[in-house]
Amino acid sequence: MIAAPPKPPQFDSHFHQCFEQLLLWRRDVRHFRRDPVDEGLIERLVAMACLAPSVGNSQPWRFVRVTEADRRVAVRANFAACNSEALHDYHGERARLYASLKLAGLDDAPEHLAVFCDHGAATGHGLGSRTMPETKNFSVVAAVYTLWLAARVHGLGVGWVSILDPEQVRVILDVPQDWSLVAYLCIGKPVEESDEPELVRLGWQEREAFENVLFRR
Amino acid sequence: MIAAPPKPPQFDSHFHQCFEQLLLWRRDVRHFRRDPVDEGLIERLVAMACLAPSVGNSQPWRFVRVTEADRRVAVRANFAACNSEALHDYHGERARLYASLKLAGLDDAPEHLAVFCDHGAATGHGLGSRTMPETKNFSVVAAVYTLWLAARVHGLGVGWVSILDPEQVRVILDVPQDWSLVAYLCIGKPVEESDEPELVRLGWQEREAFENVLFRR
Repeated sequence: MIAAPPKPPQFDSHFHQCFEQLLLWRRDVRHFRRDPVDEGLIERLVAMACLAPSVGNSQPWRFVRVTEADRRVAVRANFAACNSEALHDYHGERARLYASLKLAGLDDAPEHLAVFCDHGAATGHGLGSRTMPETKNFSVVAAVYTLWLAARVHGLGVGWVSILDPEQVRVILDVPQDWSLVAYLCIGKPVEESDEPELVRLGWQEREAFENVLFRR
Repeated sequence: MIAAPPKPPQFDSHFHQCFEQLLLWRRDVRHFRRDPVDEGLIERLVAMACLAPSVGNSQPWRFVRVTEADRRVAVRANFAACNSEALHDYHGERARLYASLKLAGLDDAPEHLAVFCDHGAATGHGLGSRTMPETKNFSVVAAVYTLWLAARVHGLGVGWVSILDPEQVRVILDVPQDWSLVAYLCIGKPVEESDEPELVRLGWQEREAFENVLFRR
């Protein structure tokens, strides 16, 4: 007997609404509860992330679960140094506001996940990345964002920390030289939920008006 | 009377399953039906894309709906030239396979959407992009992928064309010099649905084994 081919899903109006709620309530989380993440859930989220699109199906994403205390301490120190340098770029009220922001949940988040792009991988055979080599990194971003949405679906928050020296983080985590850091993620249960970005609530940056982002040619 | 604050959504196991189906059946589509996209749907998808995360809440995404025939013809010609050059990188069986692939739906897709990163925007005030300036482009990738998933939810397929000269496309579309092309999207109803990438089905690149993408430190 031949198995019937799988049937494409039809997404109804209830799913439309829930999906929009997911986008609206996904947040960049910096305030985490310390409760551990359920056993096996990180692996499941990474498996879902691997369903992301990638240029030439190259799948250049490499996920590194950071559990060793000394490596976490070194990443935390790198963040502190980069954040301190960044503060020098601001002056007056903007500097005061920057200094007041909590920009990473590195201390409390139970899970740290570093995500790299493997530029040495032969997968994909170069298809689609000849004129736009940055699409390799872009593929990894799609995987990161898939994991982010999947985490929120499963009740977890994700915070993307970019105030880091990417090459230093690569050295701290002892991964190959042709891997470049795309994202360092904090993952765990969020202290609170919100449908408004923290940087909007705290007066750093409002949402952009729609007429400033859509054009026609 | 004070309005109650909105309640965070709870995603049940049915949503979990549907969301995973969405990831499984999202495809990079190159075969489109020519039926027009419903009036207003592109605007709605762009509005959902604007819910993507962005570094410092900078929202540097700029969407350009390409409807003018002469501009579409020029983009099509740029693709043909880049694709022809790319073919020279392959030899033997791999070259034959490359030449047989349909790598863009530019002729049939009813909607073309070019997505740029505005590197001149002051929004976000530089937060988070000092040590990793590429996170501006990464924010735009998150918006592109949000739109892609939202399109699939609404029964549309998206194909990301990267076999283009990004600076030439910028000139063809006459947008500011500090905008860089992140993605050129074809959007429309797909000819067929599948839960398997076309590049897997046609023997270009298999899915990567899980043990090659998840590590621990």
